[in-house]
Amino acid sequence: MSSGIEDAPKRRGRRRSGEDTRAALVAAAREVFTEHGYSGATVRRIATRAGVDPAMVNHWFGGKEGLFSAAVSIPVNPSEIIPKLMEGDPQHLGERMVRQFVTVWDAQEGGAFMALMRGIATHEESVRILREFITSVVFGRMIKELGMNRPELRAALCGTQIVGLGMMRYVVRLEPLASADRETVVAAVAPNLQRYLTGDLSDVPG
Amino acid sequence: MSSGIEDAPKRRGRRRSGEDTRAALVAAAREVFTEHGYSGATVRRIATRAGVDPAMVNHWFGGKEGLFSAAVSIPVNPSEIIPKLMEGDPQHLGERMVRQFVTVWDAQEGGAFMALMRGIATHEESVRILREFITSVVFGRMIKELGMNRPELRAALCGTQIVGLGMMRYVVRLEPLASADRETVVAAVAPNLQRYLTGDLSDVPG
Repeated sequence: MSSGIEDAPKRRGRRRSGEDTRAALVAAAREVFTEHGYSGATVRRIATRAGVDPAMVNHWFGGKEGLFSAAVSIPVNPSEIIPKLMEGDPQHLGERMVRQFVTVWDAQEGGAFMALMRGIATHEESVRILREFITSVVFGRMIKELGMNRPELRAALCGTQIVGLGMMRYVVRLEPLASADRETVVAAVAPNLQRYLTGDLSDVPG
Repeated sequence: MSSGIEDAPKRRGRRRSGEDTRAALVAAAREVFTEHGYSGATVRRIATRAGVDPAMVNHWFGGKEGLFSAAVSIPVNPSEIIPKLMEGDPQHLGERMVRQFVTVWDAQEGGAFMALMRGIATHEESVRILREFITSVVFGRMIKELGMNRPELRAALCGTQIVGLGMMRYVVRLEPLASADRETVVAAVAPNLQRYLTGDLSDVPG
């Protein structure tokens, strides 16, 4: 973020500030993740595209996952959050996840979620990266770690609930969900997410 | 929809075709629903804005609800569909609803849903009309008819699941959900929608 105090032309030729480096990395990451997918995009390639030292990725984002999260406007770093969420009873994982998502999004009044949705509606590349985020980075990995059957289907179903929750609470702002307190949202939504995570899907064909 | 054969200038001064009338009504409806909300917008006002006879609303849309659905790119008429969905066991309403949404959206390869989402992400007025659609026209009314407690909360929660399903199947196109057959989607999602419609929410504060 720019301070907004200086005019853009004055910045030319100055040494890159930390925030400039960070922004250049996010912009380069969006391009490279789009071109190569999550697994194909390397930290080195992104840093080269941004014209900065690869060590800056660790410095600013703690690694590739954090940079990816920033690129898709997800203000958490999955490699820090997921191990914490996985601690404790798997039967309460849905509850912990809803609480985590709502806590992070609420703190920004839904800004990050809205930015993500705006990108998805208008840019094909945002769709691609959200797809990878759901399958490779967050839900898919957690469900595989739980050892559940049909992990891809479960991950996609979790995506329906979490993205739909974000849409209603922050974008459509449908009452009483929009101004419900966090624990109300958790109690309302967690059992449904839990079915997708660990419930019996034996009635589901395929 | 225009035929695309004639150039726009040639159309000037010609008598309005049926399709032109329909399009003028949809455009006027979007404006008037935005300005006055669902209940405040009258058929007469919309017809006047479109410069057509109010009888054309019945002719083309079967009434205000059908026109509203067209304005929000929902290709069904709630006043026809809802009574059919309400027939039968309320404990299977979730199943019937998921089947109905997926059938309609699949027939258009998600086109109507994507148009709606694009509008929502970029135009505040689309948000307002979707909000009314969920609360006044579809879920809210069905849940009130069922006599369930907390109808507004239930309607909003149904919105999270249905909108999230549309996002994953048609916009993000997350596999295996995107190419799953209809009955797989129904079996996977219906129990979750059913909890929001008629399930026990006594653990939910508020």
